Amino acid sequence: MRISARNQIKGTVLEVTKGATTSHVRVDIGGGQIVTSSITNEAVDDLALKAGGKCIVVVKASDVMIAVD
Amino acid sequence: MRISARNQIKGTVLEVTKGATTSHVRVDIGGGQIVTSSITNEAVDDLALKAGGKCIVVVKASDVMIAVD
Amino acid sequence: MRISARNQIKGTVLEVTKGATTSHVRVDIGGGQIVTSSITNEAVDDLALKAGGKCIVVVKASDVMIAVD
Amino acid sequence: MRISARNQIKGTVLEVTKGATTSHVRVDIGGGQIVTSSITNEAVDDLALKAGGKCIVVVKASDVMIAVD
Amino acid sequence: MRISARNQIKGTVLEVTKGATTSHVRVDIGGGQIVTSSITNEAVDDLALKAGGKCIVVVKASDVMIAVD
Amino acid sequence: MRISARNQIKGTVLEVTKGATTSHVRVDIGGGQIVTSSITNEAVDDLALKAGGKCIVVVKASDVMIAVD
Repeated sequence: MRISARNQIKGTVLEVTKGATTSHVRVDIGGGQIVTSSITNEAVDDLALKAGGKCIVVVKASDVMIAVD
Repeated sequence: MRISARNQIKGTVLEVTKGATTSHVRVDIGGGQIVTSSITNEAVDDLALKAGGKCIVVVKASDVMIAVD
Repeated sequence: MRISARNQIKGTVLEVTKGATTSHVRVDIGGGQIVTSSITNEAVDDLALKAGGKCIVVVKASDVMIAVD
Repeated sequence: MRISARNQIKGTVLEVTKGATTSHVRVDIGGGQIVTSSITNEAVDDLALKAGGKCIVVVKASDVMIAVD
Repeated sequence: MRISARNQIKGTVLEVTKGATTSHVRVDIGGGQIVTSSITNEAVDDLALKAGGKCIVVVKASDVMIAVD
Repeated sequence: MRISARNQIKGTVLEVTKGATTSHVRVDIGGGQIVTSSITNEAVDDLALKAGGKCIVVVKASDVMIAVD
């Protein structure tokens, strides 16, 4: 499957924290950068996400903001 | 200003493409990764974004998806 | 690629309307339902989306609202 | 109330799963399609959502992605 | 129609700026606050939005960030 | 830091409700308007958000919908 979302960055799962319905997944995308994702517990189970696994961080361009100092 | 958005990655603006109301901004975040952002033309003007400028890519954790091959 | 987004519905592209930077893609998902998507022109080109093509509509669960009459 | 969101699909609530602050609502939109929504517990209570109830799934066009196989 | 989105604020349309596919709508919500919305041209036409009209600004709670100075 | 998000409204935190992974923050933005935000517990801790604190509500224009009665 190829998806319209413009941002697709390879990484490695660092940590999965499950809540009651929502999980937080921390992904190391290299260069010292960590990305945090908030997804459903169901998605974590479905994709069998766990620390050490390879993954791809996906973000739609319209969800990306730009800031300056 | 410090913001709740969990993902804040430093980068350099590569290109700003203005449309009629919406601009696309491409940012080099290092490690060979390019991030594309879709924001208003007004924001581009307000922040004076242009190629070569330093910036920070900001994404709320609930807008980040995870994929696996 | 398998993605965390919980909503993935098969359909057929009805129409692609390109703007200056942003395209609108209308997809027939069957049962008389049409879904409208707003994505970058670049994504339309990259996926070679055009009327009649098969596609999958993808929506993250946190972007779905519920209404009642 | 009529809303700008381009995607409004009628359905029937299948299941409401409440978490600590966030609920997941599964909706049958017909044609064998199930949509999952992640909303606040407060919204579930406010709209009195429960299995068997009629509802409308609402998604803004800019939150819809397109994928191809 | 009542919707799950937790934020629904009454206002008056100040300005509608149409682009090729995407419009920007500026709304005065009182107290000196202006809200900017980016929606499809189709939605603007469908709701007949124009300066001076009454409207309601709607935002899902998961799309609201918090910042501090 | 200045950010591209077009909507930045000053307010006062009314209440922080922590869930297992996700918190709800209610903010009084004046004029009798309350805004609800759903963010990570980690962000609440990082910004030390608590009732009575000053804050800024931030929303990207593409996440704002418009409704009419």
